[in-house]
Amino acid sequence: MLNPADPAFLSTLPQALLRDARPADLEEPRGRWTGQGGAVAVPRSTEEVALLVRACAAARVGIVPLGGGTGLVGGQLMPEGPVPLILSLERMTALRGLYPQENVLEIEAGAVLAEVQALAEGAGRAFPLTLASQGSARIGGLLATNAGGVNVLRYGNTRDLVLGLEAVLPDGSVLHGLKRLRKDNTGYDLRHLLIGSEGSLGIITAASLKLHPRPAAEGAAFFAVADPAAALRLLSLAEERLPGMVSAFELIHRQSLAFLSETLPQVRQPFATPPEWMVLIDLGLPAALDPVEALLTLSEAAGDLVQDGVIAQSAAQRAEFWQLRESIPLANRRIGAVSSHDIALPASLIPAFLAEAGPALARIGDFRINCFGHLGDGNLHYNVFPQPGFTRKDHDHQREAVKTCVHDIVHRLGGSVSAEHGIGRLKVADLERYADPSKLAAMRAIKAALDPLGIMNPGAVLRA
Amino acid sequence: MLNPADPAFLSTLPQALLRDARPADLEEPRGRWTGQGGAVAVPRSTEEVALLVRACAAARVGIVPLGGGTGLVGGQLMPEGPVPLILSLERMTALRGLYPQENVLEIEAGAVLAEVQALAEGAGRAFPLTLASQGSARIGGLLATNAGGVNVLRYGNTRDLVLGLEAVLPDGSVLHGLKRLRKDNTGYDLRHLLIGSEGSLGIITAASLKLHPRPAAEGAAFFAVADPAAALRLLSLAEERLPGMVSAFELIHRQSLAFLSETLPQVRQPFATPPEWMVLIDLGLPAALDPVEALLTLSEAAGDLVQDGVIAQSAAQRAEFWQLRESIPLANRRIGAVSSHDIALPASLIPAFLAEAGPALARIGDFRINCFGHLGDGNLHYNVFPQPGFTRKDHDHQREAVKTCVHDIVHRLGGSVSAEHGIGRLKVADLERYADPSKLAAMRAIKAALDPLGIMNPGAVLRA
Repeated sequence: MLNPADPAFLSTLPQALLRDARPADLEEPRGRWTGQGGAVAVPRSTEEVALLVRACAAARVGIVPLGGGTGLVGGQLMPEGPVPLILSLERMTALRGLYPQENVLEIEAGAVLAEVQALAEGAGRAFPLTLASQGSARIGGLLATNAGGVNVLRYGNTRDLVLGLEAVLPDGSVLHGLKRLRKDNTGYDLRHLLIGSEGSLGIITAASLKLHPRPAAEGAAFFAVADPAAALRLLSLAEERLPGMVSAFELIHRQSLAFLSETLPQVRQPFATPPEWMVLIDLGLPAALDPVEALLTLSEAAGDLVQDGVIAQSAAQRAEFWQLRESIPLANRRIGAVSSHDIALPASLIPAFLAEAGPALARIGDFRINCFGHLGDGNLHYNVFPQPGFTRKDHDHQREAVKTCVHDIVHRLGGSVSAEHGIGRLKVADLERYADPSKLAAMRAIKAALDPLGIMNPGAVLRA
Repeated sequence: MLNPADPAFLSTLPQALLRDARPADLEEPRGRWTGQGGAVAVPRSTEEVALLVRACAAARVGIVPLGGGTGLVGGQLMPEGPVPLILSLERMTALRGLYPQENVLEIEAGAVLAEVQALAEGAGRAFPLTLASQGSARIGGLLATNAGGVNVLRYGNTRDLVLGLEAVLPDGSVLHGLKRLRKDNTGYDLRHLLIGSEGSLGIITAASLKLHPRPAAEGAAFFAVADPAAALRLLSLAEERLPGMVSAFELIHRQSLAFLSETLPQVRQPFATPPEWMVLIDLGLPAALDPVEALLTLSEAAGDLVQDGVIAQSAAQRAEFWQLRESIPLANRRIGAVSSHDIALPASLIPAFLAEAGPALARIGDFRINCFGHLGDGNLHYNVFPQPGFTRKDHDHQREAVKTCVHDIVHRLGGSVSAEHGIGRLKVADLERYADPSKLAAMRAIKAALDPLGIMNPGAVLRA
């Protein structure tokens, strides 16, 4: 059993490394849980992180690592159990090195994503991880959760953008793995084990990140399509014609546009009559290719697949297109979901999923469904909302049934019940329900081997 | 301590799953070690693999998984210790599924790489893993060693081409992870832990592989450059102008060309006077771009960086260029290396490495150095040969000093002493010498947690 981070324990720590918890440390974006108050440790260096971890290990006190606090599954706060030490990386933001010729940037875990993007841009490069919370999400948290976002189709998940890691392991030892190598087959890949382990196996303190050349030209278009199957055929066509140049391919249902009209009327919509389904396609091209022409040629080659289209004629218009896409989560929050599902499916089974899930949910209650997301990755945000005049509270009694209904179908089709947000504390029971038993057993064995005291983010990913 | 796979043990196994060991099962490409004779288990299904692993676990008998046997670090054979059961995947070659629209192919671990490439091609797709031994290397071994090859620059290492795995773990349980998902953040990434673990944590039985669209056009050129620094600047320029379209960028030293002239005179060479350094660049382009024109424009933009060049004018000529590149390892074998080094460096430090290593080796003895490899990945094959009239035997007493000299410099510059070949049994001591102590400790803890009896490929990666 763990001990609380009580005043007696805190008094043993260097007081310069502590501050009082602020409300923001204890909240998460959807307001579903609140962390327990207490002290927040704010180390300035990897050595200070190691010192704090060793102190917690010696006293058997739990540690909750904190980045930007933008996670959606409660991995960053512990609402119950012995009060943990919150360990925020906020003071560890130093650029350790920038190597434009190598396409590498080394930075500490507390750096905010938007700052990393700006540093890369300043060096004539791109760090392609792009997501709505980039103004506050920190690198350590993005790596710990293997964050997704809109450019996964072209550049991969966060784990694919990481060359090396420095981390403090649960015994307080420092893993010095901040390598700048594209190839390194010397032993087990601890980097990929820590990425996505959500702070349950160690604390990432710095990362060596992969940069990419910036495309000479970028373009975007909204294409109205008949249904998700047509959208998938359009994606195949785009990738065949422009291999490696499709940066994003986002599916948007008419419900998203209706929610935007209702809650964010200032967001300009592309079509006078909203189509039932549309995609937002984004291209990054070499100088020899013109984006408007490429998108026009693509829509012509697509024939009937594209029912209507608007091609961005300028960078400003492209930004406006993306503004619409990035506003959908805010519109959703204003409506208030009964249940949100961050699911992935084998791409060709998405139509089958949609055909089954809608009627199944209708048997539970009367809902509006907003389905949008990263179609290029098979990743949908399939979110269930009350009808007008009702609130999520009215459906409290159905929430569990809705979630189980959606997740059971996803699981049966070989999908994932957490495509990009992780397990955190929200989906621990889902993991137990859906994960392969051998996988769960191996995860528990690894957790016990690396964190025998169970001090690292207790209760996240695996039950404490 | 392990027990040998003696006749008494073998008699407890289903005899239909056993055959006698053949010489090929006990040899490795460079002829440096010989495995111990005995029985080879040849399961036909994952269930039969599991049965065999459970039998070995119960009897504490070691298992050496065997794929195509093309590994260069002795991971596939055990020259000493209690005779293990060799478990060959040769009968597990079934295609489990092919999903061209999803760019996914699911296949069993015994399939040969060239067959997988052909299956992908038949579906209008590409499986881009490409290496010299593709005619015999099997998928299971390629994944177990995270094989590299010539297209890593564009498509990543083998681990980047894998969506999911099925494997038998050391306790005989089956990990059902054959997913077709681009995003899946449900728990620790056991896939990446097994990939590159060289059979020491389990036996991969099937994989879900990522296919790619085939580029509409491909092109290649040899460009003579002043030195590796110039080659790196040329690579930067190429990637800026053609982001994501440079499939390979190989460095070749004049010594490679001399060895080819000496041992394989039928291989046609591009330049009348061999340049000291040249690169082989390979492009995969969309239909709108012409490869010959793109390479010509690139060489013009490169100015003085390109001192001379030959651009392939046909697919046949491009194949001939690659034939030269792929013949270098055979020429090397015919000459007979004193010591071969599969190293990776931060790209910008490659010139510093070369400047230091050559003189350092000259202080040990009189050698010829053949430096070639995947410059785009910072991965060099830096191989040391005797002068004409001498053989590798003449330098037996210097081999250890040569290797240590090269590896020490690589390590000091933040490089890897095994970029793409792995640890196997050849580099166990190197791993102990150069790996971060925290990494080694974590690896040992994971090995002990997942394979407490130590039956999986005993002595590979970690000392038994």
